[in-house]
Amino acid sequence: MEAASLKARIVSELQAVKRRSGKTYGQIADETGLTNVYVAQLLRRQAQLKPSTAPLLRAALPALTDDLLLEMKQPPLRSYDPNLIQDPTVYRLNEAVMHFGESIKEIINEDFGDGIMSAIDFYCSVDKVKGVDGKDRVVLTFDGKYLPHTEQVTE
Amino acid sequence: MEAASLKARIVSELQAVKRRSGKTYGQIADETGLTNVYVAQLLRRQAQLKPSTAPLLRAALPALTDDLLLEMKQPPLRSYDPNLIQDPTVYRLNEAVMHFGESIKEIINEDFGDGIMSAIDFYCSVDKVKGVDGKDRVVLTFDGKYLPHTEQVTE
Amino acid sequence: MEAASLKARIVSELQAVKRRSGKTYGQIADETGLTNVYVAQLLRRQAQLKPSTAPLLRAALPALTDDLLLEMKQPPLRSYDPNLIQDPTVYRLNEAVMHFGESIKEIINEDFGDGIMSAIDFYCSVDKVKGVDGKDRVVLTFDGKYLPHTEQVTE
Amino acid sequence: MEAASLKARIVSELQAVKRRSGKTYGQIADETGLTNVYVAQLLRRQAQLKPSTAPLLRAALPALTDDLLLEMKQPPLRSYDPNLIQDPTVYRLNEAVMHFGESIKEIINEDFGDGIMSAIDFYCSVDKVKGVDGKDRVVLTFDGKYLPHTEQVTE
Amino acid sequence: MEAASLKARIVSELQAVKRRSGKTYGQIADETGLTNVYVAQLLRRQAQLKPSTAPLLRAALPALTDDLLLEMKQPPLRSYDPNLIQDPTVYRLNEAVMHFGESIKEIINEDFGDGIMSAIDFYCSVDKVKGVDGKDRVVLTFDGKYLPHTEQVTE
Amino acid sequence: MEAASLKARIVSELQAVKRRSGKTYGQIADETGLTNVYVAQLLRRQAQLKPSTAPLLRAALPALTDDLLLEMKQPPLRSYDPNLIQDPTVYRLNEAVMHFGESIKEIINEDFGDGIMSAIDFYCSVDKVKGVDGKDRVVLTFDGKYLPHTEQVTE
Amino acid sequence: MEAASLKARIVSELQAVKRRSGKTYGQIADETGLTNVYVAQLLRRQAQLKPSTAPLLRAALPALTDDLLLEMKQPPLRSYDPNLIQDPTVYRLNEAVMHFGESIKEIINEDFGDGIMSAIDFYCSVDKVKGVDGKDRVVLTFDGKYLPHTEQVTE
Amino acid sequence: MEAASLKARIVSELQAVKRRSGKTYGQIADETGLTNVYVAQLLRRQAQLKPSTAPLLRAALPALTDDLLLEMKQPPLRSYDPNLIQDPTVYRLNEAVMHFGESIKEIINEDFGDGIMSAIDFYCSVDKVKGVDGKDRVVLTFDGKYLPHTEQVTE
Amino acid sequence: MEAASLKARIVSELQAVKRRSGKTYGQIADETGLTNVYVAQLLRRQAQLKPSTAPLLRAALPALTDDLLLEMKQPPLRSYDPNLIQDPTVYRLNEAVMHFGESIKEIINEDFGDGIMSAIDFYCSVDKVKGVDGKDRVVLTFDGKYLPHTEQVTE
Amino acid sequence: MEAASLKARIVSELQAVKRRSGKTYGQIADETGLTNVYVAQLLRRQAQLKPSTAPLLRAALPALTDDLLLEMKQPPLRSYDPNLIQDPTVYRLNEAVMHFGESIKEIINEDFGDGIMSAIDFYCSVDKVKGVDGKDRVVLTFDGKYLPHTEQVTE
Repeated sequence: MEAASLKARIVSELQAVKRRSGKTYGQIADETGLTNVYVAQLLRRQAQLKPSTAPLLRAALPALTDDLLLEMKQPPLRSYDPNLIQDPTVYRLNEAVMHFGESIKEIINEDFGDGIMSAIDFYCSVDKVKGVDGKDRVVLTFDGKYLPHTEQVTE
Repeated sequence: MEAASLKARIVSELQAVKRRSGKTYGQIADETGLTNVYVAQLLRRQAQLKPSTAPLLRAALPALTDDLLLEMKQPPLRSYDPNLIQDPTVYRLNEAVMHFGESIKEIINEDFGDGIMSAIDFYCSVDKVKGVDGKDRVVLTFDGKYLPHTEQVTE
Repeated sequence: MEAASLKARIVSELQAVKRRSGKTYGQIADETGLTNVYVAQLLRRQAQLKPSTAPLLRAALPALTDDLLLEMKQPPLRSYDPNLIQDPTVYRLNEAVMHFGESIKEIINEDFGDGIMSAIDFYCSVDKVKGVDGKDRVVLTFDGKYLPHTEQVTE
Repeated sequence: MEAASLKARIVSELQAVKRRSGKTYGQIADETGLTNVYVAQLLRRQAQLKPSTAPLLRAALPALTDDLLLEMKQPPLRSYDPNLIQDPTVYRLNEAVMHFGESIKEIINEDFGDGIMSAIDFYCSVDKVKGVDGKDRVVLTFDGKYLPHTEQVTE
Repeated sequence: MEAASLKARIVSELQAVKRRSGKTYGQIADETGLTNVYVAQLLRRQAQLKPSTAPLLRAALPALTDDLLLEMKQPPLRSYDPNLIQDPTVYRLNEAVMHFGESIKEIINEDFGDGIMSAIDFYCSVDKVKGVDGKDRVVLTFDGKYLPHTEQVTE
Repeated sequence: MEAASLKARIVSELQAVKRRSGKTYGQIADETGLTNVYVAQLLRRQAQLKPSTAPLLRAALPALTDDLLLEMKQPPLRSYDPNLIQDPTVYRLNEAVMHFGESIKEIINEDFGDGIMSAIDFYCSVDKVKGVDGKDRVVLTFDGKYLPHTEQVTE
Repeated sequence: MEAASLKARIVSELQAVKRRSGKTYGQIADETGLTNVYVAQLLRRQAQLKPSTAPLLRAALPALTDDLLLEMKQPPLRSYDPNLIQDPTVYRLNEAVMHFGESIKEIINEDFGDGIMSAIDFYCSVDKVKGVDGKDRVVLTFDGKYLPHTEQVTE
Repeated sequence: MEAASLKARIVSELQAVKRRSGKTYGQIADETGLTNVYVAQLLRRQAQLKPSTAPLLRAALPALTDDLLLEMKQPPLRSYDPNLIQDPTVYRLNEAVMHFGESIKEIINEDFGDGIMSAIDFYCSVDKVKGVDGKDRVVLTFDGKYLPHTEQVTE
Repeated sequence: MEAASLKARIVSELQAVKRRSGKTYGQIADETGLTNVYVAQLLRRQAQLKPSTAPLLRAALPALTDDLLLEMKQPPLRSYDPNLIQDPTVYRLNEAVMHFGESIKEIINEDFGDGIMSAIDFYCSVDKVKGVDGKDRVVLTFDGKYLPHTEQVTE
Repeated sequence: MEAASLKARIVSELQAVKRRSGKTYGQIADETGLTNVYVAQLLRRQAQLKPSTAPLLRAALPALTDDLLLEMKQPPLRSYDPNLIQDPTVYRLNEAVMHFGESIKEIINEDFGDGIMSAIDFYCSVDKVKGVDGKDRVVLTFDGKYLPHTEQVTE
């Protein structure tokens, strides 16, 4: 609880820093070489800020204090509000995963073998493209290392 | 229940047709011009077979009977077994969606406006690429039309 | 949590502005050209105030401050208290949706094809009519764009 | 369980009768003077067939046997499969109800008083209209009697 | 949240007014002509105080302020703490409803037709009687209007 | 599972006996001196048939076989399908219990002391009365022994 | 909520009184003639303090103020934190009840008839004994009145 | 599923053996030196039959076949139907455990130390006694070894 | 459902093969060089049999048919019955994971960095050792590759 | 609630003491002879500090006050935040337990008999080893006393 409210307070400060900067996640991503989703994860303490990236992020967001940077370098306790599933955007992503999930699994099995897409060695980004009808489309990319289930042999 | 068990029986027959063909979802996708995930969805009755695609699919899977094709042309009741979330592949996709969900939503808001990525006007595919370490990576693409929340005016 | 309590505080202020105005949602709807439900959604931060509508809303509710209008222009995180289902009015709507849901789906399939009614390109209003027995009736209208499930072809 | 499987079997037979007739719910509605949703409810035993309507329904669906008509005249145990919420069409209706629910409730309070829209003295229909962009729209109408909460006085 | 805590505060004040009056719900019921359960509902904002009853209630509870009476006249958002089911008294009522529910439904069907007992046009009271063994018994009466399910005809 | 399906089969037979008798629960109640709800409970194995009542019940339902009567004399495992809460009649009873529950508890406390209404030494009946508007009303009576919480003293 | 936090505060004060007394629940039980579990229930407001016991309890815990005693004499709203099931001691009790439950029920049926063990006219105590291996054993005794399910006859 | 249905079939046979013997659990307990609850657990495959007890049990229930005894000697997968909590007897035991749980835990802590009552080295029995009012009472005894939480030192 | 019942049937056959062999998981593990847990996983289709291991397994279990070996080489849909948590052995493992989970996570963070223990590149075994008191102890080893959360940079 | 927030405050202070010491759990474990996981459990009040260990712990963490040590010597109410399962590290442990659980149980049955691994007489540690590929691996060891299910004989 204490830890959760500390995290909430830090995230609130990080969001304020971003808001005052007037920059979007995309702009910060461009300035730091990170994916736009990862920048957003950093600014809500869902990812750890790597030491080598800290100066790049501070360059993009000069209002980041040393204290905030120090906090951002700690491994976070990853979590989410279960009610987040109510949000229409998040629900539709979840719907796609659950409805297409078994198909995705079988294609991975056919094309790679008995294994999974890692959610740890993993990249995620959101792109904006034009559809054939000239309308905007959201392209979400999940790019994760293939991890084969190991055979558990005794050494 | 009756409808559910009918669907289960049809899916079982469709999977048997595919198994006997010796083809992967990817091969059928190449022959039909569909995404690999969509082919898998068709073969488990999670998508409707369009009339113009039926001949292409039968060309790829000649063992498809007229009865099966007729069934596949019905709009399905889309569903999934809730225990599917136990599967490691599906869980990790769900984990990514829930942990990154709020960030993805905010980036859509910044880059597109107040709207969502449609899960209906939507494409999904699984690709295999090499990472910088030469290891296989799974790339999952969600490509959905941007739908702005309408302002509800009286006409 | 922080964001949720900020939203709660803003909604509380918006409700106070409305209460002091002495106007109903219906009156504000008439003055702004919005549906009555949409006005209510705006005043609880469940919808984004469009720039062109802001002056109309302020004309109807002059006590709206610049700060409140600025907040109302942000894309909201749409959510609800799960206990809301306990309220008799909301429960009965949910009951109708769940008990009639499969029938509604099949009629959409028969009359439109394999697709859905969008909840994003969507209008909602509440009207008061007289029944044949002279008693009041509530008429709730959901009016959403038909979205066909796309066939997922590779380009 | 026994009752549930009996109901499932009857519904299965009723759906077969309809399928063989080649008629849509809308056509049967036109021939019987019922709403399209109510016809669908009758054919899945979610509503009781009234004696005076039985001849009209048999005229529309001559394959209905006396046994089926007898069953349809019993008050049903209304129910639904909880997984129905997974279906995209049903989910979006539920989403609208939960996200707009509190607003709808408050407008009923303002315009009618402290009461609800009945889900029992209730009409429901699905209509197809053209939007201003010429695209199809689904219009779902819920029309229920207003029921004021009674003051509980001792007589 | 804001609304919930406002309601909690009002209820707390109403309970204090009652406690200081030294009266039971039964005594207030006798003085106002309301059922004892309804009085209790009013004093926890689960029912709306009707204008004509306000003077009677204030006569019974003179410490009720104008502000409190004004609040009590608003239509409440009806709700309960889900943990209330833990209370032995409430659990046993729920147990009776769930274990006897299907029987009650069928008797209503046999004696009235295909309809329900309204929980809106509804009276509830608690009485104390002596059993044949001379021991106290609680008699809980639910008295609700019979509402037949309407046949949904198009006009 | 075995026990549950045995119970379901017995209930199915009991319901068939009743259906063929052409009698309502109310008529059987009149002939046996039991409450109508209790008769219904007996015929779905939610209550134990007492030896002295068996001849009365067989007189009312002569088609009851010795085997069925033997089964009915066993103490049943009381249970219900959790989905029963979906039925509109049952839901509204549950709604009343949960929304009025805390008030009912407090009135019992004021009028009886710190105890509960037993659901074991308990009577339940459904009656049909006319309201002041001449319309039918359902009156459901729960009549249970008051059980005071004992003070736990060591002897 | 208000009531819950009042209860929490009172319990906190009662626990402080006990802690400062340096006495165990067992010692207070010995001094008051109550079971050890019941003393603990009193000191967390899960039981009502009877007037005749109040002097005995104050003799054992002289720091109990009049205000606290007055509160303890109110019938409490019995409740528990659902997460309590996480505690290893509580979980194992729950495990025993659920795994042995059906057997316990059947033995009561065989030895007493169709009825239950009351949890209201009920005693509970914890004792410490030596096992045959000389190790400590916990003996938990539940002692409740047998309540036969009544046959529901009309008078 | 296969294993579960095998277990259900074996239990069904064991119950039939007992029923045909005409003996109660208590009588079998007397003849075998086991607790009555443990006999019931054995006859529903919730406990393993020890080799030295097998002859005693067969002496009490001669109809037990070799095949059944062989099955009874396997370590069972302990389980229960979650709906068992609906049964009034089981619910009341669960209610007692949850409402008294924290008190029981604290008394164990005071009288034994930081540890639990084992549910594995554990005895359970049901006894019938007369209360001071001459009425039957159920006494349920849980007798488990005290297990102190170990301090986890490295060796 | 079809797939689930196929899997259940295969597992049932595999278990029968093992039972008839009279070998334990440990013996099969010794003969194949696999961990004992992995052998058990293979024989319930929770792991894929690798081609190079198939001859070793058939040598240990000669009754394995070609059809069974073919099935065992398919990537399984990993799943479990949610009620498995009721089993005392499984519950205690789950209890340990949930109660120690946050500590384990923090130690991994301190000793390895911001990452996890893979459950895919993962070994698991059960060993039997003697404690200092000469009593048997179960040692369960989870041995998984450390996977650092990647920093998501754009290439 | 009060107790929970007290625990949260103490944990917060203990974590601050550790942070200021600059030591890892592993270093404190080395200095005190405890396992690393157990040290972490002590510092979040999930285990009781034994009197003989208190001086060792204070030697390792001199900033521990007498008040904190006094608190740490109380038997804690063991608990966890249910959302902890969202954390990727904790989820994967849970996944392993649930997916391998039935296999682990059967191996314990084969190698030890009908019993469990205690989670009370239990050791847990996290180690860092090199895999054959030179990469870091996490080794988690659960070491618990084997507890056989007792046969419940009457003495």
